[in-house]
Amino acid sequence: MSAETLTAESDFFAPRAAIDDLLRAFLTEKAQTAALPGQSALALLLHDFLDGGKRVRPLLCVTGWRAAGGRGDPADAVRLAASIELAHACALIHDDIMDAADSRRGRPTVHRLLADNHQLPSLAERFGLGGAILVGDLALVWSDELLHTTPMPDTHRTAVLRCVDLARSELIAGQHLDLLTTGDLDVSVETTLTVVRYKTAKYTIERPLQVGAALAGAGQQVMDACTAYGVPLGEAFQLRDDVLGVFGDPDRMGKSHLDDLREGKCTSLIAHALRAAVPAQAGRLRALIGDPRLGEREAAEVRAILTSTGARDAVERMIEERYRQALDALAAAPFPADAVRTLEAVAEATVHRTA
Amino acid sequence: MSAETLTAESDFFAPRAAIDDLLRAFLTEKAQTAALPGQSALALLLHDFLDGGKRVRPLLCVTGWRAAGGRGDPADAVRLAASIELAHACALIHDDIMDAADSRRGRPTVHRLLADNHQLPSLAERFGLGGAILVGDLALVWSDELLHTTPMPDTHRTAVLRCVDLARSELIAGQHLDLLTTGDLDVSVETTLTVVRYKTAKYTIERPLQVGAALAGAGQQVMDACTAYGVPLGEAFQLRDDVLGVFGDPDRMGKSHLDDLREGKCTSLIAHALRAAVPAQAGRLRALIGDPRLGEREAAEVRAILTSTGARDAVERMIEERYRQALDALAAAPFPADAVRTLEAVAEATVHRTA
Repeated sequence: MSAETLTAESDFFAPRAAIDDLLRAFLTEKAQTAALPGQSALALLLHDFLDGGKRVRPLLCVTGWRAAGGRGDPADAVRLAASIELAHACALIHDDIMDAADSRRGRPTVHRLLADNHQLPSLAERFGLGGAILVGDLALVWSDELLHTTPMPDTHRTAVLRCVDLARSELIAGQHLDLLTTGDLDVSVETTLTVVRYKTAKYTIERPLQVGAALAGAGQQVMDACTAYGVPLGEAFQLRDDVLGVFGDPDRMGKSHLDDLREGKCTSLIAHALRAAVPAQAGRLRALIGDPRLGEREAAEVRAILTSTGARDAVERMIEERYRQALDALAAAPFPADAVRTLEAVAEATVHRTA
Repeated sequence: MSAETLTAESDFFAPRAAIDDLLRAFLTEKAQTAALPGQSALALLLHDFLDGGKRVRPLLCVTGWRAAGGRGDPADAVRLAASIELAHACALIHDDIMDAADSRRGRPTVHRLLADNHQLPSLAERFGLGGAILVGDLALVWSDELLHTTPMPDTHRTAVLRCVDLARSELIAGQHLDLLTTGDLDVSVETTLTVVRYKTAKYTIERPLQVGAALAGAGQQVMDACTAYGVPLGEAFQLRDDVLGVFGDPDRMGKSHLDDLREGKCTSLIAHALRAAVPAQAGRLRALIGDPRLGEREAAEVRAILTSTGARDAVERMIEERYRQALDALAAAPFPADAVRTLEAVAEATVHRTA
C-alpha cells in the first residue's frame, strides 16, 4: 500500500471521531433528559450498542459530501452521517431478532441482553423480544431527529430526504427477499445478486455517498457517478464477504467458518457451485450446507467442492470485474481529486481485504 | 346528541375519505412500482392492514390544522395525516408481535398471516416474525416518505418535524414502560397513569392535533391549548377503555371481557382496587388477574371486587374530572368556533361511549 493510499485512507477515517462524539453526546443527552422510568436505560443501551461499529456508511456519507464539492467544516455532513448510523443500528438490532442471533461484535445482542437482565424468568424472552423491537424503532426515530435537525439549504433538503427514504426502503426490500429465500438452495445466482445489490451495494455504498452528496447540492452527474462507483463496489464487497466466510482465516475473521455454512444461506458462491456441480457434488452440498451439526471435516469438503466446481474462481472474477467497474466509474466521475483518491483507497481496501 | 353535535361530528369525519384515498393510492403505487420479488406483496399487505382502522389520529391532525386557522383545501394536512396513520400501522404491527397476538380487528395479525402463508412449516414462525418486523419498519419508512413530501412552508417545517419525532419517541417510551411493568400487579396508580399519558394521551390526541396545528403555523398559545385539551382527554379515553374492557357489553365491544383480565395488565382500575382492597379481596384479585384460564364466573368475581372497593367509581370520577378539564381548556383555547364545536363532540364521543 503506497503512502498516497495511506493518506487517502486517513482522509476517509478523519471524520470518525467527530461522528462518534456526536453520537455519544446525542445519546448521553437523551439518557440525561429521559422523562420516564426505564427510558434512560434505552438510550444507554443504544450508546453501548454503537460502540465498536466500523462506521462505513457514515464515513461514506461525509466522503460523498466532499465528492460533491463540500468544503470547510463538515459539521452538517457529520450530523447527517450520525443519523445514518442510528438508522443502521435499527437495522442490525431488528436483524439480530430475525436471525435469533445471540451475539454481535463479541457481545450479546440487544434482545439477548434484555432477556438475560429481566427479573422474571417466565417473561424474560418476551421482554427481550419486545424490548429489542422497541430499541430498534427508537434508533430509527432518533435517526430521524438527527436528520430533521441537520441544517441544510431548503433547496437541497428534498434530495437528501428522498435519498434517505429510498435507502431505507431498499434495505427492507432486500432483507425481505433474503428472508423469503432463506432455506432455499435453489435460488438463482441472479437472485442472490439482487439481494446483494439491495442489502449491501445500494444501502452500504451508493446511498450513503448520495445522501452526503445531496447535502452539498450535487447535480445529477455527481449522483449518477455515486451509483456507477457504489453499486459494483458494494457487490464486490459482499462477494468478498461470502468468500471470506468460507475460505478466510478464522482468526482474522473473528468468527468460525462453520457459522456461515451451518446457517445455510445460499450466497452467490453456493449458487454458482450448485449450478456447476455434477449430481454427486450437488447432493453433498445440499446435505452439508444448512446442517447445524456441520464440523471442520465437512467444511473442508464443502470448500473442496466450491473450488473444484470453479465456483470460487468465478466469484473471484466477479469481484475483480466489479472492482474494475468501480475504478473506471471513479476515473470518469466529476469528483475533486482528493475525493477520488479516498474512494480509490476505499475500493482497494474493500475488495482486497483478508478479514 | 343534539343536531349541533352531529354536525360537529361529521365535520370531524369529513376528511376520512380523502385520507383513505391517499393511503390506498400511495400503497397501490408502491405495489405497482415494486422492483424486487416479494416487494409488492408487502405494499398490499399494508394496504389491507390499514383497512378498517378508525383513523382517530389522522382525523385529529386535520382538526388541529383547522384549530390553528387552516382554511380551504386540506390536501397538505390530509397527506400529513396519512403519514401519521402509516407510522401508527408500524406501532400496531410491532405491538402485535410483542403481545404474541393472533388477531386484530377480527383478522389475523401480520406475523400470523405471514407465518400461516409460508410454505416451509419449519421456517414459518421465523418468517412470520421477521417479515412482520420488516413490514412494520417499512410502514415507518413510508410514513417518513409521506411526511417528507408534504408541501409545507419552510418556516413551519421545523415545528412539524419536531412534533412528529416527539410523538414517536414518547410512544416508544410509554410502550417500554408498559412492557417493563407487564406481569407486575404492584404498579402504582401513578405509574399506570404515566403509561396512559405517553401511550395514549400524548400519542393519540395531543401530538396529532399539534402536528396539524404546526402545519398551519400555530404559535405557542395554540400548541399549548392542544396540550391542555389533548392530555386530559386522552387519559379519559384510555381510562374509559379500561372500564369498558371489564364492565362493557362484550357484544358491543367486539371482544370478550376475559381477554383483558387474562392478559393480567395492571390498569389504573386494577391498581386502584388493589390499593383499596382488604387482604382477602387483594388475594383474590392477584389469584384471578393474569390467569389464562379465567372464566365468566371469575370475571364476575373480579367485577364485584372492583365495584365494592370503590375502584370503579374512583376511575369514573377520574374520567369525569379529565373530561371537564378538556372542556375547560377548549373554552379557553384560541381556536375558531367550528374547531371548538368539533373538539367538543370528539370529547363527548370519547368519554361517554359504550364501545
